[in-house]
Amino acid sequence: MISIRTDLAVEAKEIYSAQSNGKTSGVDVEEYSEGDIKITNVKIVSDVGEKMMGKPKGTYITIDIPEFVHYDGEAMDRVSVVIGKVLKPLIKLEDSMTALVVGLGNWNVTPDAIGPKVVSKIMVTRHLKQLVPDSIDEGIRPVCAISPGVLGITGMETGEIIRGVVEKIKPNLVICIDALASRKMDRVNRTIQIGTSGISPGAGIGNRRMQINEQTLGVPVIAIGVPTVVDAATLANDTIDLVLDEMIRTANSGGEFYNMLKSIDKEEKQKMITEILNPYVGNLVVTPKEIDMVINSLSKIIASGLNIALQPALNLEDINKFLN
Amino acid sequence: MISIRTDLAVEAKEIYSAQSNGKTSGVDVEEYSEGDIKITNVKIVSDVGEKMMGKPKGTYITIDIPEFVHYDGEAMDRVSVVIGKVLKPLIKLEDSMTALVVGLGNWNVTPDAIGPKVVSKIMVTRHLKQLVPDSIDEGIRPVCAISPGVLGITGMETGEIIRGVVEKIKPNLVICIDALASRKMDRVNRTIQIGTSGISPGAGIGNRRMQINEQTLGVPVIAIGVPTVVDAATLANDTIDLVLDEMIRTANSGGEFYNMLKSIDKEEKQKMITEILNPYVGNLVVTPKEIDMVINSLSKIIASGLNIALQPALNLEDINKFLN
Amino acid sequence: MISIRTDLAVEAKEIYSAQSNGKTSGVDVEEYSEGDIKITNVKIVSDVGEKMMGKPKGTYITIDIPEFVHYDGEAMDRVSVVIGKVLKPLIKLEDSMTALVVGLGNWNVTPDAIGPKVVSKIMVTRHLKQLVPDSIDEGIRPVCAISPGVLGITGMETGEIIRGVVEKIKPNLVICIDALASRKMDRVNRTIQIGTSGISPGAGIGNRRMQINEQTLGVPVIAIGVPTVVDAATLANDTIDLVLDEMIRTANSGGEFYNMLKSIDKEEKQKMITEILNPYVGNLVVTPKEIDMVINSLSKIIASGLNIALQPALNLEDINKFLN
Amino acid sequence: MISIRTDLAVEAKEIYSAQSNGKTSGVDVEEYSEGDIKITNVKIVSDVGEKMMGKPKGTYITIDIPEFVHYDGEAMDRVSVVIGKVLKPLIKLEDSMTALVVGLGNWNVTPDAIGPKVVSKIMVTRHLKQLVPDSIDEGIRPVCAISPGVLGITGMETGEIIRGVVEKIKPNLVICIDALASRKMDRVNRTIQIGTSGISPGAGIGNRRMQINEQTLGVPVIAIGVPTVVDAATLANDTIDLVLDEMIRTANSGGEFYNMLKSIDKEEKQKMITEILNPYVGNLVVTPKEIDMVINSLSKIIASGLNIALQPALNLEDINKFLN
Repeated sequence: MISIRTDLAVEAKEIYSAQSNGKTSGVDVEEYSEGDIKITNVKIVSDVGEKMMGKPKGTYITIDIPEFVHYDGEAMDRVSVVIGKVLKPLIKLEDSMTALVVGLGNWNVTPDAIGPKVVSKIMVTRHLKQLVPDSIDEGIRPVCAISPGVLGITGMETGEIIRGVVEKIKPNLVICIDALASRKMDRVNRTIQIGTSGISPGAGIGNRRMQINEQTLGVPVIAIGVPTVVDAATLANDTIDLVLDEMIRTANSGGEFYNMLKSIDKEEKQKMITEILNPYVGNLVVTPKEIDMVINSLSKIIASGLNIALQPALNLEDINKFLN
Repeated sequence: MISIRTDLAVEAKEIYSAQSNGKTSGVDVEEYSEGDIKITNVKIVSDVGEKMMGKPKGTYITIDIPEFVHYDGEAMDRVSVVIGKVLKPLIKLEDSMTALVVGLGNWNVTPDAIGPKVVSKIMVTRHLKQLVPDSIDEGIRPVCAISPGVLGITGMETGEIIRGVVEKIKPNLVICIDALASRKMDRVNRTIQIGTSGISPGAGIGNRRMQINEQTLGVPVIAIGVPTVVDAATLANDTIDLVLDEMIRTANSGGEFYNMLKSIDKEEKQKMITEILNPYVGNLVVTPKEIDMVINSLSKIIASGLNIALQPALNLEDINKFLN
Repeated sequence: MISIRTDLAVEAKEIYSAQSNGKTSGVDVEEYSEGDIKITNVKIVSDVGEKMMGKPKGTYITIDIPEFVHYDGEAMDRVSVVIGKVLKPLIKLEDSMTALVVGLGNWNVTPDAIGPKVVSKIMVTRHLKQLVPDSIDEGIRPVCAISPGVLGITGMETGEIIRGVVEKIKPNLVICIDALASRKMDRVNRTIQIGTSGISPGAGIGNRRMQINEQTLGVPVIAIGVPTVVDAATLANDTIDLVLDEMIRTANSGGEFYNMLKSIDKEEKQKMITEILNPYVGNLVVTPKEIDMVINSLSKIIASGLNIALQPALNLEDINKFLN
Repeated sequence: MISIRTDLAVEAKEIYSAQSNGKTSGVDVEEYSEGDIKITNVKIVSDVGEKMMGKPKGTYITIDIPEFVHYDGEAMDRVSVVIGKVLKPLIKLEDSMTALVVGLGNWNVTPDAIGPKVVSKIMVTRHLKQLVPDSIDEGIRPVCAISPGVLGITGMETGEIIRGVVEKIKPNLVICIDALASRKMDRVNRTIQIGTSGISPGAGIGNRRMQINEQTLGVPVIAIGVPTVVDAATLANDTIDLVLDEMIRTANSGGEFYNMLKSIDKEEKQKMITEILNPYVGNLVVTPKEIDMVINSLSKIIASGLNIALQPALNLEDINKFLN
């Protein structure tokens, strides 16, 4: 069984399910909706689940947002409220405890800039609580935030920078936001994953990258990820699958061609495609044309959700007032 | 024979050539190199050529730039010098004649922003010649520049804005820069096309778009275009062709499957792919991950080439000094 | 009597009033408030008024906004609503008539970028009314918008560009937004002036600049201006006045020094200050440290006010939904 | 004797000199020129010098750059070369030792963004030396870089973030770049100060700010500072001094007014001006109108100087090639 790389637990679950004829052990799944927003809660609960899913034990909540949300300020607010609702039980902080929000990714590369863009919209309060405590409400939680950059920009492991800051600031919780890779075109910019088992930033040069999780930082880590691109080989593969399905549907059942098509090994095929395409598409990604706008919208949605969850004493209006 | 849409004359030529077994009439092609830079000069000279190529009569010069040019300031300068050299004979202006440089495209959409970015780096001199003539050298040509935006941003046809400005300013030449669509992944951000028969901005809603050319503006128009994206359906189609070729190579020659593969009508296939993909990829484009950096580099290269061609009395160093 | 340059009619009125011991003819003034927002309506009604005020006949409405508005999204909305209310009676367009919004100024110079920033937030609808009329409500008015740049960027007179566009597009009304100069520090970024007699863009090199008004464009022009900087000489002069007033207050009435102070000719003094300062402050302006944020906020406020006034069939919520 | 706050050692030296009739002890000053660039080397060598100058012992090198340097790419390169030359003896690192470059200041406030802008142009090599050592020349020194933001953006003391990073990365040298305050309009954007005794970031709320120097970080710290604004009260005060000097020059020597003017206590006056102005100018700064362009130019100049000093095995051309 080949492990297919995906950052999304729902996708890993689908693949696992397909490979095991629906008999998945070690993984619990719960689905529900809030209006037109679909929430899927995947829990990896055992070592078997961990191995089969290729992801550490923990909770992975996926929020699927409606298609035209980026063109509708009101719909954006509804998604933010759902994110806030989903995050609150995971945060488990007392009022006086400090959260550190970390925006991962490269601010110079639009689809990778979602983390830094969220951080720029977070309600930062920790310094106010320390320096001018009287000017700030009792119920406001101390929040601080940083975008550490990426290895190519800083020359330093992102994990090391975060660990250095965490050791000085001693927050009680770290929340990371990062761009993810999806295997499905229709998840790009439409899915937000919230997980409790940390994150591994960047594609990795060699395998030196430091995990960002409770083991390495010493405090709980919540990871928020959004798939913002699909790599070009994935798109090509998905297309060929669609074409093959169409050919099978229309071919004479039982003929040599039909049998040929049926006998194609999907993993073999994918390997072949990747090999053939590699010299051509190396660094290419597939993205919506209006990616700059979509990333702005997504970062607003997530930042609002985080602000709601981190400041339960405030409503969205108060938060917007504070931020402007 | 189906006309396949491409903005690049070299691609149209390849398709025409393939469809007519190499017997192309009405089209002259000349190729040569300057170091590692390849120049192809396609001339459409007759009505037949015009019809077969799907493009108006005129000269279309394609400059193919080496792969790693965006990582090498010196190589960038070499490409600029070649662009300048290719442009000079097309410009045909006396020293006192005015050129208007127009940056087409949407500055909010990175791969579409190349025109406005070139304009921001053009050496603008027309006002100096008019207002402080003594401060400016005899040999400096009057140049002015504008980025008119796109229909969705201004609510106005780009062609109408340009026509309005041209009627007031009365330049002797208009040079337009725009992002193009290519049919080949390996041309993206690697090919610069310079043509004498104008441009049709935008993908067009209905067919209301006004051509920008000598007929509509009343002055000669040089169009400079760069393919900066490939649409996702093109990528998928190209991949399937690669896969089919590989399958044919390895199949038993003469078997049913082999025959089946050989009998696939490439145009039928492309139509099918487009139909199948449409609901999934609607607005998706394929682009290098570091597109922001590449567009910056390309706009520097083209602007320098234009400045060299428009100001023959100056060298690249003088121009950079003026611009900084 | 020396005419002191100010772009604001309220300031010209104050100076005129001071110089004529309050007896101003040819100028009508009306003041009222909407909550904490103060509106002053200055009407220049005669040739005498025109001459004394140094401004053409017409209506000049000044909106003074509260101090901390830029830190309060709700207060920003309140100002937008007042701007909308003040603008509506000036616009006088039927539903089917077209408005062209023009953002004057240099987008590369933060305090001068307010016009282009407003334009980027205008609800542009003209193309939708033309191309997909069914998708758009009956009551939506056709609006188009452009930021023509400044002479130093385009090499073309801004007025010529606008005239070229107006002749092609034939709007029924032009609305210009520009940054102004104020003579008072406490008006900077706190005052919005709306006038019916056009605008003269830029500081002017020589006196070649073309006025933008009903005479030159052939359609009514509404000008919206905001003072975003004070020049350094003005700041110095105002300070010395404050210091002199303080000295006079504390000096022995009747002594030589007191008489000396009282005898200082304010215009002479200002001339001297300007002469002394010129070599030192040439190009310096005085601006709040957080000018980038303030310009963003002001452009949102004004754009919302314009959208409200131009689209009476929509409320602010609909407009924000459309724009996002 | 009132200590007048200035970040520049040359200014502190001028004030000290004026107050002590030129008899300054504990301070050594050396001046020389490189073409049109003036270098002043102020050494504070004793406790007395430290006390009188209001600055810790150490070397403070001031580079005064010619007026029109920002309009001349060649002149910019000349200044960079001088900066490199001045920095090299201070850096004292072996080839294998690591330097961390820190860009202080707020990237959202143009005149405060110089540190982060320099960092974005630094040749970052530390990760290449670690991960792909064969791809990188022997003589390349490992350099890493970070812009930690400001308290209002992160909610964390900048000094704490830097200390956290330094403890993890263990560089052998830290180089900080920051915007400074000057007391003189003609030093704004024209003076670069390089010092060996660290930096105190931000204006400070209360006195909680952590110094960034060898004591707090455990490694040598070089501080590079540029005055990019003058506060409005300073401008006003300087103007009044100019005016008073002019009045004294023209008054009848010996008269009451002359005596009055001569008797004005300059410190009293400054206090009065600050008091009078405060409600009006609170947060105002004086800055050149084209500040965005000037900050870009300055950051290029300083980054090139740093790259030259940190990579002695490379010339400016190699560095530019690497960075593009």
